[in-house]
Amino acid sequence: MRIPFIKMHGLGNDFVVIDARETALPVSPARAAALADRHTGIGCDQFIVLEPSDQADVKMRIFNPDGSEVGACGNASRAVGLLLGGERAGRTRIETGGGLIEAQATDAGIAVDMGAPRFDWNAIPLAYAMDTLAMPLAWEDLENPVAVNVGNPHAVFFVPDAAAVDLARLGPIIEHDPVFPERVNVNVASLVGPDHLSLRVWERGAGLTRACGTGACATAVAAMRRKLVGRSVTVDLPGGALRIDWPEGGHIVMTGPATTSFEGAFDDALYPL
Amino acid sequence: MRIPFIKMHGLGNDFVVIDARETALPVSPARAAALADRHTGIGCDQFIVLEPSDQADVKMRIFNPDGSEVGACGNASRAVGLLLGGERAGRTRIETGGGLIEAQATDAGIAVDMGAPRFDWNAIPLAYAMDTLAMPLAWEDLENPVAVNVGNPHAVFFVPDAAAVDLARLGPIIEHDPVFPERVNVNVASLVGPDHLSLRVWERGAGLTRACGTGACATAVAAMRRKLVGRSVTVDLPGGALRIDWPEGGHIVMTGPATTSFEGAFDDALYPL
Repeated sequence: MRIPFIKMHGLGNDFVVIDARETALPVSPARAAALADRHTGIGCDQFIVLEPSDQADVKMRIFNPDGSEVGACGNASRAVGLLLGGERAGRTRIETGGGLIEAQATDAGIAVDMGAPRFDWNAIPLAYAMDTLAMPLAWEDLENPVAVNVGNPHAVFFVPDAAAVDLARLGPIIEHDPVFPERVNVNVASLVGPDHLSLRVWERGAGLTRACGTGACATAVAAMRRKLVGRSVTVDLPGGALRIDWPEGGHIVMTGPATTSFEGAFDDALYPL
Repeated sequence: MRIPFIKMHGLGNDFVVIDARETALPVSPARAAALADRHTGIGCDQFIVLEPSDQADVKMRIFNPDGSEVGACGNASRAVGLLLGGERAGRTRIETGGGLIEAQATDAGIAVDMGAPRFDWNAIPLAYAMDTLAMPLAWEDLENPVAVNVGNPHAVFFVPDAAAVDLARLGPIIEHDPVFPERVNVNVASLVGPDHLSLRVWERGAGLTRACGTGACATAVAAMRRKLVGRSVTVDLPGGALRIDWPEGGHIVMTGPATTSFEGAFDDALYPL
């Protein structure tokens, strides 16, 4: 069967999006991984399947290139907001494994309500109770991260120069540390100006990417809790900038661009379950 | 304007193919590079544009991800042979910058007549006259390559273990050595059995790829000239195997698979000239 898809990206973090609201698309880890292969498949950082939802406008399922399913992807939320925004006056409620989020088209880009962050150790989750604002652990020079869950688990390290960290080597070591029973996204961030952060992210299951939307949210709220910045910050990622707002006691709002690269269709028999 | 394309691969060496025989597609290095970008474009090792030819069935133009145009791509020739084979009883004559080639569907895959190899120093081209069967030069442990042109320039190093060579580091150094005025593709090959070679290739303008068809041809004829193998060899590449035949005094014939991954269309305004 021919399956249509849309290729999108947010700040170079790229997605294959399948609208399976009317015609279901069965997905296995093997099929997701084969479609995500950049040489023999379509190629993407995350493979997104849109399904019907009984609690929101759409359910967004997110698969990493290794075939694993994850609960949240901030950049993909903006892409889905752009894709479906036309159907609902620019406002789309999206059910994800990490909770309900809401996308809204604005003059500054697509704004996504990412929900409230969680800082309880068992909500990250961590393997045992500890201070999540400064975990008493170190991996070489990376030490005392903030642990936060913004739909998926993050460890945020504040360092003098994020560009100088060997994240390709340290990222997978921290991702797979047993203190993170569901693994973790690894963020290294530097303060580069007032309310202005520079960030690089090692994504769980995906590796180094040009931009991680949930990483920008996690890093911004971690910096706010540490009193490094105010409640509205700009986060520079290798692929571009996002604005993150987190009103006291409220939800995180991430604002930034999303783009359609091309449209296509594949034969599902070429990508078996 | 919406431009349709086909995404294909041969042994994981992947191509975006545009059939511009009826509707011309203007291509600049910037547009080719933007379309080849794997995150914000379509993504490919080589961008292929098919144009009308007055000396063959089709003219194949080949662009690397850096936007440079090259004369030959063996894997892409098989892909084009598969794509157009149905139109002409399985036989397609293809004009390339490197000369006329011919693709034929066979039970063993797509067989491509790659023409005759050239071993004259000024046909490679090299910067000055020397023995092309054992160039009197060395780059660290890599020494005395065979230089051969099979539509594009190749240096072939025979080593005890091709897998052990740090080709990501040495490849670009050799590619840009002034002895190769048009740069060069860098092949490291080992004999792994009778008439059986293992090969890794650093491709000029593209870097390490899973399979390089012209590299397999260049390496096979170099091994034949060095009397390491007979006139029909199997060449294992990271993406799979090719068979290369070179009858005494004749043309090289490369046989192997080609696959369509998916079809799509892009808006040319998103990828400006």
